[in-house]
Amino acid sequence: MTEISGIAVNGERLWQSLMELAKIGATPKGGNCRLALTELDGKGRDLVVGWMKEAGLEITVDQIGNIFGRRRGRQPSLPPVATGSHIDTQPTGGKFDGCFGVLAGLEVMRTLNEQGIETDAPLELIIWTNEEGARFVPVMMGSGAFCKVFPLETALSAKDVDGKVVRDELVNIGYAGEAPVPSHTIGKYFEAHIEQGPILEAEDNVIGVVTGSLGLRWYDVTVTGMEAHAGPTPMPHRRDALYAATHLMQEVVKIAEDFAPEGRGTVGVVNVYPSSRNVIPGQVSFTVDLRHENGERLAEMDARLRQACTQLSEGRTCGFPVQVELKDVQHFHPTPFAPEMVDAVRQQARERGYSHMDIVTGAGHDAVYMAGVCPTSMIFVPCKDGISHNEIEDAKPEHLEAGTNVLLGAMLAQAGIAKG
Amino acid sequence: MTEISGIAVNGERLWQSLMELAKIGATPKGGNCRLALTELDGKGRDLVVGWMKEAGLEITVDQIGNIFGRRRGRQPSLPPVATGSHIDTQPTGGKFDGCFGVLAGLEVMRTLNEQGIETDAPLELIIWTNEEGARFVPVMMGSGAFCKVFPLETALSAKDVDGKVVRDELVNIGYAGEAPVPSHTIGKYFEAHIEQGPILEAEDNVIGVVTGSLGLRWYDVTVTGMEAHAGPTPMPHRRDALYAATHLMQEVVKIAEDFAPEGRGTVGVVNVYPSSRNVIPGQVSFTVDLRHENGERLAEMDARLRQACTQLSEGRTCGFPVQVELKDVQHFHPTPFAPEMVDAVRQQARERGYSHMDIVTGAGHDAVYMAGVCPTSMIFVPCKDGISHNEIEDAKPEHLEAGTNVLLGAMLAQAGIAKG
Repeated sequence: MTEISGIAVNGERLWQSLMELAKIGATPKGGNCRLALTELDGKGRDLVVGWMKEAGLEITVDQIGNIFGRRRGRQPSLPPVATGSHIDTQPTGGKFDGCFGVLAGLEVMRTLNEQGIETDAPLELIIWTNEEGARFVPVMMGSGAFCKVFPLETALSAKDVDGKVVRDELVNIGYAGEAPVPSHTIGKYFEAHIEQGPILEAEDNVIGVVTGSLGLRWYDVTVTGMEAHAGPTPMPHRRDALYAATHLMQEVVKIAEDFAPEGRGTVGVVNVYPSSRNVIPGQVSFTVDLRHENGERLAEMDARLRQACTQLSEGRTCGFPVQVELKDVQHFHPTPFAPEMVDAVRQQARERGYSHMDIVTGAGHDAVYMAGVCPTSMIFVPCKDGISHNEIEDAKPEHLEAGTNVLLGAMLAQAGIAKG
Repeated sequence: MTEISGIAVNGERLWQSLMELAKIGATPKGGNCRLALTELDGKGRDLVVGWMKEAGLEITVDQIGNIFGRRRGRQPSLPPVATGSHIDTQPTGGKFDGCFGVLAGLEVMRTLNEQGIETDAPLELIIWTNEEGARFVPVMMGSGAFCKVFPLETALSAKDVDGKVVRDELVNIGYAGEAPVPSHTIGKYFEAHIEQGPILEAEDNVIGVVTGSLGLRWYDVTVTGMEAHAGPTPMPHRRDALYAATHLMQEVVKIAEDFAPEGRGTVGVVNVYPSSRNVIPGQVSFTVDLRHENGERLAEMDARLRQACTQLSEGRTCGFPVQVELKDVQHFHPTPFAPEMVDAVRQQARERGYSHMDIVTGAGHDAVYMAGVCPTSMIFVPCKDGISHNEIEDAKPEHLEAGTNVLLGAMLAQAGIAKG
């Protein structure tokens, strides 16, 4: 039997593939704009599917455009040990978010081919459709449909801001597959990803052993006051919706700080109406994103937010009443990953001598949905300054190589390496 | 000699003209959207110019589209006593802002015609181009060019968000006149207007005797932090540009409150970048509007704002540093109106038995520019709940009639009523 921890991927080949994919939708600042189901997403898919075929993988595309590439096992009837991620990006996204997970999986396949290694269970590489949710919601659309988090029809009928529909856009880029959703059973799932946060870098660790995901609550908030002319309206007569809303926006941050260190609070989108320089805003709508690894703490954060909305609406926060509407948009409970899968990652990091630490993912990932249907874990590698969803997102080739080695080892250990 | 205060306008006719004009660009909520130099603005102009011609006024259009309608005096060489305002509106504007001033002037002309009254000096009714500035900046474009506040070329080459140019749009609607800018000298200028604030209504007064205008400073502020993923980035690692910016937005309001009762502070427009639900904002830009009737106090407000920007940028406000850029956009000094013109308004209100009070305008008006070139004053009437720049803007017919009677009286007193 081959010693698993002695099998190593080709880090240079991995890096070259990442750079090659990053040319599609490259932005002037060095990032990527490859929004889900655009022509550029289609080109990215074509490139990677070409590589998957060259690696001998058998391709299946399902009705939501998820791509599965299977490497046969010696026991083809076993459910596959899978890995994957996504290649769509944010409007000002980077080269690594998602792409690393997909191309790490590809590099695993290439390495096994090169070294003539067979596994007992089949292996599978998955490209999930529209993980980012930047163009179409729900986010994590492909994995969500696969894991029956929402009906396939919800995903297929989603529209972008221009009214274009997922169903049609899949056809346009040639990825409206025929396989049902879900098409088959996955045995186990690993996902490699850049951390998208600063912790590994700050702690000088190469591998993050991901033990689970933060719970998340998304809201849309609308504050309605009274629009009026900015000049003639004395301050005591105003019901400035923006001034009122800024108190809630600050409260979102304060709530997260009060639930340190795992609390997170973000206002990402703000729309002011009527948006004129000399008109006091009559209405402000904004998004709220709250996260915590503990479901009870997250519920407490939710309660704090609701209380702040009530206080604001009653005029107790800024001295005048406003209407406050809080709409629930999404709610993910904290998800602990399967202990044996987490152990598999930790063991590979240890055996290969990579510095590592346990970590919780604050971001949503396809793996978070997969954890609901099969044993799942993730492998994190550091990204520069913890920055992601940004064109300057960066990661070191040696860290990406280390993460891919851990992925390879963990997959082999779970799939069973064929006795030579 | 006719007793001036015995001459009264026809309030019903005035109201009917207002309602007729309001049909052009009417919005479902009962307001008006008649943006400057659009086809609807052209239709509005055609309607009012038709009425002006029916009233025997001699029409001149200048190169920036200002419309002058002259009623001959017995001494035609005297500079005219003029009145006017504008008929363009905000995107969600009302029926009275501007239109009242123009149609009050028209009603004065109609009344004098009907009663066979001649004046010594000529009278003039003016429709100024693009007072609102909602589509093209600079605001108060027609009066600003007429008063040489900025070069005619600046106005003619202004573009809207679609890149359409004032010069071309004037031609499109048929109001690219031939008269030079300025075409002639104005002797004295009155402007009737709804208050656009709540003071007259709160004090139960019918007439506002406007003694001058608040000074105004406009700024564009840009706060730059660091965009990052909303999930994995712990709170202490963030440089959330929106969280930082909310402190400045609140400071704008606090500065105005600290300079009560005449201080005003408004943030009307906010843009968040990259504007994604799960991305910590990396950059936020917003407008600031500060006003005060006293130039020294306004300078102190300006200093407070600059100080707040410095403190925020140095991390002293919210615990982390951000870049803060403060750009000056516009600066109007407080403008006192000519005492004899203010007295003329006050005297008419008194003689006609209308409750009245001195008031300062917080809004910019064409009259504020005119005050720089000739003796000027304004006449305010109440508007419902002080609300303007809003589709629900409303005013009482009897108040509009009262304001128009004061305008008529003040114009006659200044022009010299012909000895019968």
